Amino acid sequence: MEKIEMLYEGKAKKIYSTEDTDKVIVEYKDDATAFNGEKKGQISEKGKLNAKISTIFFELLEQKGIPTHLVEQLNETDVLTKKLDIILVEVVMRNIAAGSIAKRLGLEEGTELKKPVLEFYYKSDELGDPMINEYHIYAEELASKAELDTIKDLAFKINEILVEFLADKGIDLVDFKLEFGKGTDGKVYLGDEISPDTCRFWDSKTKKKLDKDRFRRDLGEVEGAYQEILKRLEGSNS
Amino acid sequence: MEKIEMLYEGKAKKIYSTEDTDKVIVEYKDDATAFNGEKKGQISEKGKLNAKISTIFFELLEQKGIPTHLVEQLNETDVLTKKLDIILVEVVMRNIAAGSIAKRLGLEEGTELKKPVLEFYYKSDELGDPMINEYHIYAEELASKAELDTIKDLAFKINEILVEFLADKGIDLVDFKLEFGKGTDGKVYLGDEISPDTCRFWDSKTKKKLDKDRFRRDLGEVEGAYQEILKRLEGSNS
Repeated sequence: MEKIEMLYEGKAKKIYSTEDTDKVIVEYKDDATAFNGEKKGQISEKGKLNAKISTIFFELLEQKGIPTHLVEQLNETDVLTKKLDIILVEVVMRNIAAGSIAKRLGLEEGTELKKPVLEFYYKSDELGDPMINEYHIYAEELASKAELDTIKDLAFKINEILVEFLADKGIDLVDFKLEFGKGTDGKVYLGDEISPDTCRFWDSKTKKKLDKDRFRRDLGEVEGAYQEILKRLEGSNS
Repeated sequence: MEKIEMLYEGKAKKIYSTEDTDKVIVEYKDDATAFNGEKKGQISEKGKLNAKISTIFFELLEQKGIPTHLVEQLNETDVLTKKLDIILVEVVMRNIAAGSIAKRLGLEEGTELKKPVLEFYYKSDELGDPMINEYHIYAEELASKAELDTIKDLAFKINEILVEFLADKGIDLVDFKLEFGKGTDGKVYLGDEISPDTCRFWDSKTKKKLDKDRFRRDLGEVEGAYQEILKRLEGSNS
């Protein structure tokens, strides 16, 4: 499958059309941004690392019965996926307080949440991706009730699958972002990526951050953290 | 029924114990605050006006089958109510975009929402009353699922009742805040108040603001607006 035309360039990925109108090629870039694009940089090898890491997660989820956009990884940076009409609602799942929820609820970073927390954000750079709720989604007609029920159900299932899988690799899944879209068949699929760009991963023992917070907060060893995640995912399940 | 001891002094009301341990007296004050207490002032006659206005709304809601804390108005500023254990979740119902939702969703003030929007806020001065969702409420154990289902159901019913009642008085119910609590019988009741302090009321024809936004935004004629609301509520239903 060949790239025909670039359809869209995002902060971390480019999307290309292919000869199959139901499929696109996602090219992962080394570019990194944070704080709604205010902080910009590059993370060496990030494109390759995230393409591989995300493919491992999506293959796992497919095996567990989650409908995803993944078709196959084509080369180091390029992944063939179903073409989705992305729903403009980002879903954040949280198991441990970090980032905005710590501030919102007055919790110390690292506090284990008594129950997993799902949050919706309106995918809008212009508005700064504000937190919204189901009723905002219905009023703005961003998704139907049936779609949102499916999305919530999938998000909690994905969280369970990933928490268990990562615990076995010595990684705490602190929180992560998901995006969903409608395929050309009208069904809801998991889209976008799952990687250190979109998750908070902490070493289970040392609590060392192994994700984009190293870039956001200038903690150094950014590429090393992404490599460590890939190494653990590819390692044998002890 | 006599006031025995002041249990609590809030921004706009004082609460007193009575000889009946299941009941308290709510005394409405003329004090007005905005922006989480940063702006302070007084609105002449507000205590009397809100005690009366809120009692009219609560009597209407009781007639329509909504369980509320209202027992009876005792005098111009004092209302006897059931004693509630207040749930630390404020509920905001919105029909027309104004205030924070206009900014959050990028809507012009006055835009009619396609469906009524319910929002939850964590009742915490320290945290600045942040917007939260159901999952935050469960993780923080602020209310049970059964309590929250009751609260949502009541909030939408109250909205329907008030929108219809106020339309007949030439008033648009833009948005309003509700608080709920558990009675000594363990049941959920509507508490707090419903008044120009806690609602946005606009004249249906001129869209003139008849609520606390006149104080928040220094629009003048604050007391006159509160008086106008009471006048319309007491008027005959044309």
